[in-house]
Amino acid sequence: MTVYIVYFEPVGRKGECRANQSLLDCAHRLGMGIASLCGGQGTCHSCKIQLLSGTVSAPTGNEREVFSSEELKDGWRLACQTYPASDCKLNVPSESMTTTQRTQVEGLEITVAPEPPVQAYHLKLAGPSLSNPQADAEHLLQELNHQHHLHCNRVDIDVMRLLSPQLRSWKWQCQTSVRDNEVIALGPWPSRQLGLAVDLGTTKIASYLIDLSDGRTLASKGDMNPQIRYGEDIISRISSAIKSPKKGVQLQQITVEALNQLVADLCADIHANTEEIVEAVVVGNTAMHHLFLGLPVRQLALSPFVPAVTSALDIKARDLGLHIAAGAYVHLLPNIAGFVGADHVAMLLATDAWQAEGITLALDIGTNTEVSLIAGGKITTVSCASGPAFEGYHIKHGMRAASGAIERVQLADDNIQYQTVDKAPPVGICGSGILDAIAQLYLAGVINEGGRMLQSHPRVRNGQKQREFVLIGDEERSGQPAIVITQQDVRELQLAKSAIRTGIQVLLDTGGYSEDEISQVAIAGAFGTYIDVSSAITTGMLPAIPLNRFQQVGNAAGMGAKMALISLSKRADGAAVASRVRYIELASAPDFTQTFVQAGYLGRYRIRHGNREKID
Amino acid sequence: MTVYIVYFEPVGRKGECRANQSLLDCAHRLGMGIASLCGGQGTCHSCKIQLLSGTVSAPTGNEREVFSSEELKDGWRLACQTYPASDCKLNVPSESMTTTQRTQVEGLEITVAPEPPVQAYHLKLAGPSLSNPQADAEHLLQELNHQHHLHCNRVDIDVMRLLSPQLRSWKWQCQTSVRDNEVIALGPWPSRQLGLAVDLGTTKIASYLIDLSDGRTLASKGDMNPQIRYGEDIISRISSAIKSPKKGVQLQQITVEALNQLVADLCADIHANTEEIVEAVVVGNTAMHHLFLGLPVRQLALSPFVPAVTSALDIKARDLGLHIAAGAYVHLLPNIAGFVGADHVAMLLATDAWQAEGITLALDIGTNTEVSLIAGGKITTVSCASGPAFEGYHIKHGMRAASGAIERVQLADDNIQYQTVDKAPPVGICGSGILDAIAQLYLAGVINEGGRMLQSHPRVRNGQKQREFVLIGDEERSGQPAIVITQQDVRELQLAKSAIRTGIQVLLDTGGYSEDEISQVAIAGAFGTYIDVSSAITTGMLPAIPLNRFQQVGNAAGMGAKMALISLSKRADGAAVASRVRYIELASAPDFTQTFVQAGYLGRYRIRHGNREKID
Repeated sequence: MTVYIVYFEPVGRKGECRANQSLLDCAHRLGMGIASLCGGQGTCHSCKIQLLSGTVSAPTGNEREVFSSEELKDGWRLACQTYPASDCKLNVPSESMTTTQRTQVEGLEITVAPEPPVQAYHLKLAGPSLSNPQADAEHLLQELNHQHHLHCNRVDIDVMRLLSPQLRSWKWQCQTSVRDNEVIALGPWPSRQLGLAVDLGTTKIASYLIDLSDGRTLASKGDMNPQIRYGEDIISRISSAIKSPKKGVQLQQITVEALNQLVADLCADIHANTEEIVEAVVVGNTAMHHLFLGLPVRQLALSPFVPAVTSALDIKARDLGLHIAAGAYVHLLPNIAGFVGADHVAMLLATDAWQAEGITLALDIGTNTEVSLIAGGKITTVSCASGPAFEGYHIKHGMRAASGAIERVQLADDNIQYQTVDKAPPVGICGSGILDAIAQLYLAGVINEGGRMLQSHPRVRNGQKQREFVLIGDEERSGQPAIVITQQDVRELQLAKSAIRTGIQVLLDTGGYSEDEISQVAIAGAFGTYIDVSSAITTGMLPAIPLNRFQQVGNAAGMGAKMALISLSKRADGAAVASRVRYIELASAPDFTQTFVQAGYLGRYRIRHGNREKID
Repeated sequence: MTVYIVYFEPVGRKGECRANQSLLDCAHRLGMGIASLCGGQGTCHSCKIQLLSGTVSAPTGNEREVFSSEELKDGWRLACQTYPASDCKLNVPSESMTTTQRTQVEGLEITVAPEPPVQAYHLKLAGPSLSNPQADAEHLLQELNHQHHLHCNRVDIDVMRLLSPQLRSWKWQCQTSVRDNEVIALGPWPSRQLGLAVDLGTTKIASYLIDLSDGRTLASKGDMNPQIRYGEDIISRISSAIKSPKKGVQLQQITVEALNQLVADLCADIHANTEEIVEAVVVGNTAMHHLFLGLPVRQLALSPFVPAVTSALDIKARDLGLHIAAGAYVHLLPNIAGFVGADHVAMLLATDAWQAEGITLALDIGTNTEVSLIAGGKITTVSCASGPAFEGYHIKHGMRAASGAIERVQLADDNIQYQTVDKAPPVGICGSGILDAIAQLYLAGVINEGGRMLQSHPRVRNGQKQREFVLIGDEERSGQPAIVITQQDVRELQLAKSAIRTGIQVLLDTGGYSEDEISQVAIAGAFGTYIDVSSAITTGMLPAIPLNRFQQVGNAAGMGAKMALISLSKRADGAAVASRVRYIELASAPDFTQTFVQAGYLGRYRIRHGNREKID
């Protein structure tokens, strides 16, 4: 019987599937929670999936009833009715999932004095009369300026399109939202003034609904970035957009659709109206920033890798297709360079690292990892291609931090202790679990400092092509295949962590500093939040300095977005940060290659100018 | 055999049609030039028409082949295959016409020094490099400011969306269009900087393509206002928009579609690209202004009749759906009041009447007639409901100034001499022809000063319900019915001209001036351009002052739009004019009713405070 490899997105779990096994069975065997109320009869229609690539069996009669021919053409199928005919990649929409992926929306709490870009004013108007037939817009502006001592001179065209009937229905009393001398929204009096902060990550989107008057977070919500359909990493999405302008437009549209859905969900949570959102701030890396704005990305991908724009922008929400208040703006923090975006500016803003005393490192770990060194008022930044291993890619049993992912591992003699997301039965292993496991294997002598797996442990066995360490045996998984760490998995982690450590060392070497001089390290990003820092030090991913100098700051980019949302001073700080950064192209640094090789080793060590020195 | 009345739009011609007579035959019998290449066989499909109201015969097989069921539902038919089943109203699209209607695009020549809102700059850039990987937008702004000593700080988002690939394809050389410190367009170097001026009339649209560097008119084009499908006059269109928000949106969309078509045609004429149009100015009466911008009109139609906005506006062309340069703006001159719009401001601007010495009258005659009295630096304005009689409506053989319309009439004893538009065989009679005819009949004593038609002339006969004067007898029309002026036609003209004369007299009475003190009268608008002023005086429409004090200024509103397009000073003047105007509600003026009654009389006379005094 032929066996195919099936990838389930967006969770990122892959596994084998026989040609006579339905995709639903395959998912369940892997521990993936796809809904199936009818038990695979094809009648409940709860196991909808979408074929992204590859070939599967022809649609059954049941499926032809459920889906239009258009939908079938788009790859929509029922998992219980469908069998693989090649290796294939599938999208499991969130409504078909029984469990949801952990998306990080928590982070530092804000302690910023609100100084919002949009101010609300209560207005009572007399209304026009035959003796004073003043036009509605002029009537409003005149009274607004008179009653509140302002100098407004513009009313947004979309506000103007609603103003006359609204003022009449509200009996000439309203709340007016003013931004930079422009009336950008009207509401009945009293209305809330809400703001939207978004961290648009390559894989995940985190969104927050904020009360602009006091900076409180009223609701928060995470979702997958739907662009993942067009490629897991930035480069493949940029390639899609370059190859086909239509795909570039689609990338923009699906992102905005996802944001509009998040906005609707956030508003539903607190019984708010989307028109109450009078300002938004969106941060993301430069590619996400460009794709969201519909800016060209070709020049980002080709030498000399320049953004279309770096400075901070204020763009009408309607020009992006975002449905919030009629005349609202979206503020974009400045980008730093082609591979260091506004999300890193937001992170520096949120951690206050950019104005820290002493020598500070700030890392945002992800598929792309940005590292900044702040010293003596100067900021130097590198971008490291750490790859998607921490998201579970290229790892045999890797997966994202969804339900059932092993996220913590401890090895005591032959015994393995582990912890899974949601305490669910183990399905695979996510980034922090892999890091823990490899640190533990190194400490136990199962792996040497070069990363070679030794046959010195009862749990090490020879797999089909390579050695592997059995984390959870088949006997513990009621007959399902064991979950293992392979020799190749160790190599993948070494590449990823070496990239990060190299970035840190190049920054230190360039500034002439040593590891020991670092007074604090701020680690942001979902992976960075959940890792065990001592495991990261044990693997040599992070320099071996006292643990109390590390701070795991959660979704700092999201926090920075919130700060820029509620405070004009913080926006000015953002511009100051971006202008102060010196960007270093990592590959062109002296000693880069030598440093990269040395940083691949496991263990605690110092590196200077490419020379490694072990620490006991 | 039943006989129905059929109205042909947009020409405005109506006639009788028997139930067994095709609409094509009816049109041809009336002299309307509907194309028919196959001679009514239903095979050439050139006689497409659209049923606007009423009932007609069911579609034939031929028609079902030509039109989709959607199109048939929208009333599309072939005139040669269709027979009336009730009175009905039809739209004859311009492509089905063999002749076109005269639309006035000529007017005063401009003598304004160009001072355009958009300036063009030539730029040569170095392009980014690995050692200077500056973002494209910042690179452009920096060099623009440096090379040309500017202070630009913004690039329009739609310009930014094109900038990176454009700069590369143009090898880093371009022309940059700057408006108020914002980059609103990019083009290859060298490009033209074009401007679009539009006079959006209730019935007709006049459009002009201008070279912004020197103010030259490069092309001009007129078309019917497609809103006419929703009603001939402003009030019926406002009613449509109030009754159904969907219709309001349609009114905006079809207007913008018509403008986009005119833009495409104008550009085709001079082999220009629509992206070369970097600024537009649109003027129209307040209702046209509001419908074009998608502003609400309900409050315009209900007491106290206030506009949504009166002040001058600058709106991104994309926010209106107008396809010109990526970041271009549309400038709207200020409105004065609910029934006096930006077109009157443009007219005052164009004639320079607003800063004339002596006592000046400025009239823009149309379905709605605006009259301003300028004296001692003050401007007083009224709006007169003159109605559509001058457009041929409510006149038995009335029509607009299309091919075959009788536009001049002379009566010498029993002989009629006449002139038609395009010197085509007579089809009906347009506004200037009616005015001439009634002046001549009054002078010949066929009509008395009260407007009563006397039986003292051989050409007067008793029609079915009333007396009528035979302008062209059946014997001269090879069997087709005679073209006549009826007693009712005289009454219609009296109402229309009385409204205008009343406006003039109320302004004079309010200011305390007499007719003789008027030093000049500027008459604008299509009808105003083609009328014989002495006929207008003879009928009492205009005061009896020496002919050399009158000036027929053509499409002055269009000229004013051109001026505001090329000169920022003229825009400032426009704002000054609007702010200086005192608007008088005509019906609330003392002596209004008495004046209106007296102004209905024919002949040369003075009126003061409602008392009429004949002049020999």
